[in-house]
Amino acid sequence: MNNWAFTKLSYGVYVATSWADGGKPTGCIANSAMQVTSSPATIAISINHDNFTNECIKSCARFAVNILGENSDPAIIGNFGFRSGRDFDKFAEKPELRDFLPIVDGAIAYIACKVIDTMESETHTVFLGEVIGAEILSDDEPMTYAYYHKVIKGKAPKNAPTYIEEK
Amino acid sequence: MNNWAFTKLSYGVYVATSWADGGKPTGCIANSAMQVTSSPATIAISINHDNFTNECIKSCARFAVNILGENSDPAIIGNFGFRSGRDFDKFAEKPELRDFLPIVDGAIAYIACKVIDTMESETHTVFLGEVIGAEILSDDEPMTYAYYHKVIKGKAPKNAPTYIEEK
Repeated sequence: MNNWAFTKLSYGVYVATSWADGGKPTGCIANSAMQVTSSPATIAISINHDNFTNECIKSCARFAVNILGENSDPAIIGNFGFRSGRDFDKFAEKPELRDFLPIVDGAIAYIACKVIDTMESETHTVFLGEVIGAEILSDDEPMTYAYYHKVIKGKAPKNAPTYIEEK
Repeated sequence: MNNWAFTKLSYGVYVATSWADGGKPTGCIANSAMQVTSSPATIAISINHDNFTNECIKSCARFAVNILGENSDPAIIGNFGFRSGRDFDKFAEKPELRDFLPIVDGAIAYIACKVIDTMESETHTVFLGEVIGAEILSDDEPMTYAYYHKVIKGKAPKNAPTYIEEK
């Protein structure tokens, strides 16, 4: 088996946002998100058990997929991808809310969802969300994971489904 | 709500293959596939209830994600995407088998899975597969759904999660 075959799957780069207990907005980088049905529209997203955002989505039963663009500030990925919302306030300022969910400044579109089902795997939860709101915020091209790797020279956080340990 | 926001999610173009009862190889075009966990490696794929491949995956509990490349023959998409395996033999010739699953001639990589869980939505089944084999077959760049739309000028089949009716 050649695990590098997995890198041939194509993804975008997203920030999954939600609310922590007590009303703190938080989020984490995700690349495993996909539309499951068109009518009613549903989105599946995979979040590591160790991510603080996982327990936040479970408790508030809502999440937003914030879609990053090729010109989105790479600092967004550093902020949301490489540290934990348990210890940091990832939203330094009060975020804009859409459908009561925190939206990342610089996202080119968002899809807000309420959780209607979950599927557990050994390390990740797949949340199935029914879309409650969605808007395009910018004309910028969506950032693909390939673009992030090749142009921004980014790496996968350790909790990402797509993480491959480099020897 | 602006449904066009969904088009900002990034995908690849895949053929999900499996076996029909009686040993006929079949498959359909899918773009909603994602890695869910890295160790053990699992892949989630969303297939419309109306697709013959859906019932085939359910009965044989195995599927392969065949990843198409930018230079893969667009006829593959016509063959697997726009007609039903109920009526057609989508594999005209005996296919190459990897991990006992039919592999599409022209795929740049494959990921073979056994089904370990399913999640039903109104129109689609999300199959969670544990990877049993995976190989890279070509150096060609993966075809993204955006590439398929922009360069090959392709449309989404009606059963696709990403289908948007044009008025």
